[in-house]
Amino acid sequence: MALISIIKDFHPLGNEKLLSRAEQLRPVLRHTIREPIGGFQLKERYSPEKHEIVLQQLPHLSMGRGENLCLDFGEHLVGYLTLELGYSGSHPDAPAFLKLKFAETLQELSENSQEYDGWLSRSWIQEEYLHVDQLPSRLVLPRRYAFRYLKITMMDTSPKYKLIVRHAECRTESSADWSAVRKLDSGDRQLDRIHEVSLKTLANCMQEEFEDGPKRDRRLWVGDLRLMAMTNAMSFKNFDLVKRCLYLFGGSRFPDGRVSANVFTRPAVEADDTFLFDYALLYTVTVEEYLQDTNDTEALDDLYDIAMQQIEYAIRQIDETGTVGGQAVKDCFIDWCEDLDKTACATAMLLYALRYARRLARRKNDWSQANFLLQQHDTLRRAAMRRFWDEDRQCFVSNGQISAASQVWMVLADACSPEQALKAMRKALTLSEGARMSTPYMHHYYVMALIRVGLLSEAEQHLRHYWGSMLDAGADTFWECWDPEHPERSPYGGSVVNSYCHAWSCTPAYIIEKHLLPERETND
Amino acid sequence: MALISIIKDFHPLGNEKLLSRAEQLRPVLRHTIREPIGGFQLKERYSPEKHEIVLQQLPHLSMGRGENLCLDFGEHLVGYLTLELGYSGSHPDAPAFLKLKFAETLQELSENSQEYDGWLSRSWIQEEYLHVDQLPSRLVLPRRYAFRYLKITMMDTSPKYKLIVRHAECRTESSADWSAVRKLDSGDRQLDRIHEVSLKTLANCMQEEFEDGPKRDRRLWVGDLRLMAMTNAMSFKNFDLVKRCLYLFGGSRFPDGRVSANVFTRPAVEADDTFLFDYALLYTVTVEEYLQDTNDTEALDDLYDIAMQQIEYAIRQIDETGTVGGQAVKDCFIDWCEDLDKTACATAMLLYALRYARRLARRKNDWSQANFLLQQHDTLRRAAMRRFWDEDRQCFVSNGQISAASQVWMVLADACSPEQALKAMRKALTLSEGARMSTPYMHHYYVMALIRVGLLSEAEQHLRHYWGSMLDAGADTFWECWDPEHPERSPYGGSVVNSYCHAWSCTPAYIIEKHLLPERETND
Repeated sequence: MALISIIKDFHPLGNEKLLSRAEQLRPVLRHTIREPIGGFQLKERYSPEKHEIVLQQLPHLSMGRGENLCLDFGEHLVGYLTLELGYSGSHPDAPAFLKLKFAETLQELSENSQEYDGWLSRSWIQEEYLHVDQLPSRLVLPRRYAFRYLKITMMDTSPKYKLIVRHAECRTESSADWSAVRKLDSGDRQLDRIHEVSLKTLANCMQEEFEDGPKRDRRLWVGDLRLMAMTNAMSFKNFDLVKRCLYLFGGSRFPDGRVSANVFTRPAVEADDTFLFDYALLYTVTVEEYLQDTNDTEALDDLYDIAMQQIEYAIRQIDETGTVGGQAVKDCFIDWCEDLDKTACATAMLLYALRYARRLARRKNDWSQANFLLQQHDTLRRAAMRRFWDEDRQCFVSNGQISAASQVWMVLADACSPEQALKAMRKALTLSEGARMSTPYMHHYYVMALIRVGLLSEAEQHLRHYWGSMLDAGADTFWECWDPEHPERSPYGGSVVNSYCHAWSCTPAYIIEKHLLPERETND
Repeated sequence: MALISIIKDFHPLGNEKLLSRAEQLRPVLRHTIREPIGGFQLKERYSPEKHEIVLQQLPHLSMGRGENLCLDFGEHLVGYLTLELGYSGSHPDAPAFLKLKFAETLQELSENSQEYDGWLSRSWIQEEYLHVDQLPSRLVLPRRYAFRYLKITMMDTSPKYKLIVRHAECRTESSADWSAVRKLDSGDRQLDRIHEVSLKTLANCMQEEFEDGPKRDRRLWVGDLRLMAMTNAMSFKNFDLVKRCLYLFGGSRFPDGRVSANVFTRPAVEADDTFLFDYALLYTVTVEEYLQDTNDTEALDDLYDIAMQQIEYAIRQIDETGTVGGQAVKDCFIDWCEDLDKTACATAMLLYALRYARRLARRKNDWSQANFLLQQHDTLRRAAMRRFWDEDRQCFVSNGQISAASQVWMVLADACSPEQALKAMRKALTLSEGARMSTPYMHHYYVMALIRVGLLSEAEQHLRHYWGSMLDAGADTFWECWDPEHPERSPYGGSVVNSYCHAWSCTPAYIIEKHLLPERETND
């Protein structure tokens, strides 16, 4: 995820105790060596037309000025590249000038990055220009890349020699322990593949923190963390990593105690000056879910106050309508969707989080707080129904707009009766234009809402359609943004900066294991 | 110097004994730290319009997308760059994407390297594109550069932060020992400055070998070595470095024993597959001059046969006219000048080298060889005069062409009587069009020929005009190519790959100390 917020003279609130505990929880990274499974040459500079090469040819292929070689590593990798370079012809009398382009997808490989003019920094484009002064040479690149494909273009040699790529390998990096997970073998090939790719997506985002994307932004966002933590609990079970991330968020916050939408961890831990209303609430949710999974009393003691602070801040954003208003609505992320009216969602998010906060208060034996939260919940729920439930249309309406997002979050928040919730989701199923959902993040909650109202087969169908169509489009890991009807869509003004292995897209493994498979077993 | 010759399946003749001795003679490199003396911003991308910055402003100057900062180190440097980078604004949320351009001259700095389309590899252009993942950051660049100016362009940051260059420094590298030389203080400012810049040029080319240019080609060429060795003998007196270079040439040669025009030393010593007739002869000359300076009997024993081999090969290139013909003429470098007819020069080069070879034979007490060489010399001299001396025009004519180069080399070769030599050089002084001299390499021999015929004040005047006009054009070190009437001239199809600190341009210090100053003292 990426958002631009700038606060002048922002000085985060630091908590040394939490940061030092987070440091102790830094995971050991695991490594493997991966080699390409094949290669090809792109004939036209920016067209995907390919000339296939078998791997055995590689050490005999020499590249002159302007020629390129694309290596296919066969799967999505996160790690460090080593190239062994040689030459043919005379002794090199000038440096080799190379351009390396790392790409997560074939489309990204063939895009012309010169043409990118979006609002995200072009510095995210995984390209390097390198001079190699000596040949033969073993080139170990210092930066980490996320890629399946590597395009090597000879910007220049000299007439006296051509370059040979004798060997290429990637030293992968991840804190995920694959020995802890079982491969799904349900007999259903699509479901098995969705499950596998979900876990691969999660594993490649599991580094020293849960990163939102190993290509971009490579850092810890609350919304992504919550979904990764859920899926991790069903698979890799690296609860220490979840704990570390919760402590990082707690360890560097807004001066008034709010949890930042994301924290930087390099060179030191520092909260970003970006606040998202829904993300701060999801922090409290994630703390409660972590405690459900672990019963970690140390974490309960350390994080309880911070988790409650987020709720209390949100409660203060309730205006004279009795629902969340003002800046808090603008501070909601919900989805990459400019048309979306987020007023109903903002209130629903608080309702949703209040349920988790209450559980947390009870866990802490903080009964007065639990009662306070219950009262707040009931008052807010009634105000929400008054303002957003449309009795005629039998769905939620946010300032005149009927969106899937409003239905989803009101349903997940238990704002209405089961009958109303079912109707709201039936309505959501009919929506196709206007405020379209664009991210797997939003689609996850959409599927969860369908499950919540009992529309299990619709939930499964949507999961298969949405994540399955990504597979059909060539995904090795699930993508940051995907609209099956608008495959080229990017929230950043250019798909070359899109992330094609993105944390918030990893949840199908969770949904399948938690909801779809048990249901099947029951039906059998 | 740079030439393109390609021989398929070229396997140089190696001599382990000489190579291992060369390795023992590898010099210790000396280092200093240099910081910028000021800076400026180039307002238009490729125009030299400048906005001056005083150094104290630097740590407060922040650079956004597309902005640049040029640092002026105040003198020509060869070494390694370190940058200390910081930022202003929010915590960097994207890598910094920088372009660094190192330039020896202000003109090079403002050239658009994209427009270069010459025959030398564009990989010589000293530009890097870098991604900096963390800020603040200390960036130590691994490659060696030759530069006075450094242009840092922000290709992209993000809207959240700007880059600050807190500190920059260059760790210089050279094997020259400045404590061994005295600064000339002749009372003549132009002469003193020419002397100083000559030595600076030599010092910056003195690395682990005598490099032809620290920017390009960064390797050992015979023609450059000879001139550097001469100037070194009058200044830094690093005779071990001369010896090392002579052993490197001897240690890897053409399969038939010829000395290559240049040798590579990295990753291992290997002769280039380029042969230059005049350069091979200059090897013999350089060996003899080294022995004059040192009386090194080990070197005499080790290199004698190889030095003689070059002469014997050249003698075999004498054709039925009694002068050097065929491929040997084509294999002559002499100068970067396409119009030049090199037939007379080729014969003159052999005559010239025969004189040094005779001295070498006498030094070795090889009297039969000395006699043989004397006979060859006399026969060749007569043939040369018959073919090239034009009695009517009282100068040397090479296939109808009267060039400075033909006069110079015939005079230096003692091909004619002193009266004829004087007339030839008087003729050379009148030549201004056609086969114009273009390099300091050729101009050096031109000045030496003027001195040889006694035209001392013309020699001094030419030296002041030619090297002095480079100073007037902003030289901090002397350039590879220079034609005062055509400042933009490049033999490579684009001046951005020109070398502006070039070994063969360092000889004024030698000429001044050896010929101009003693003459003055006598005249006093």
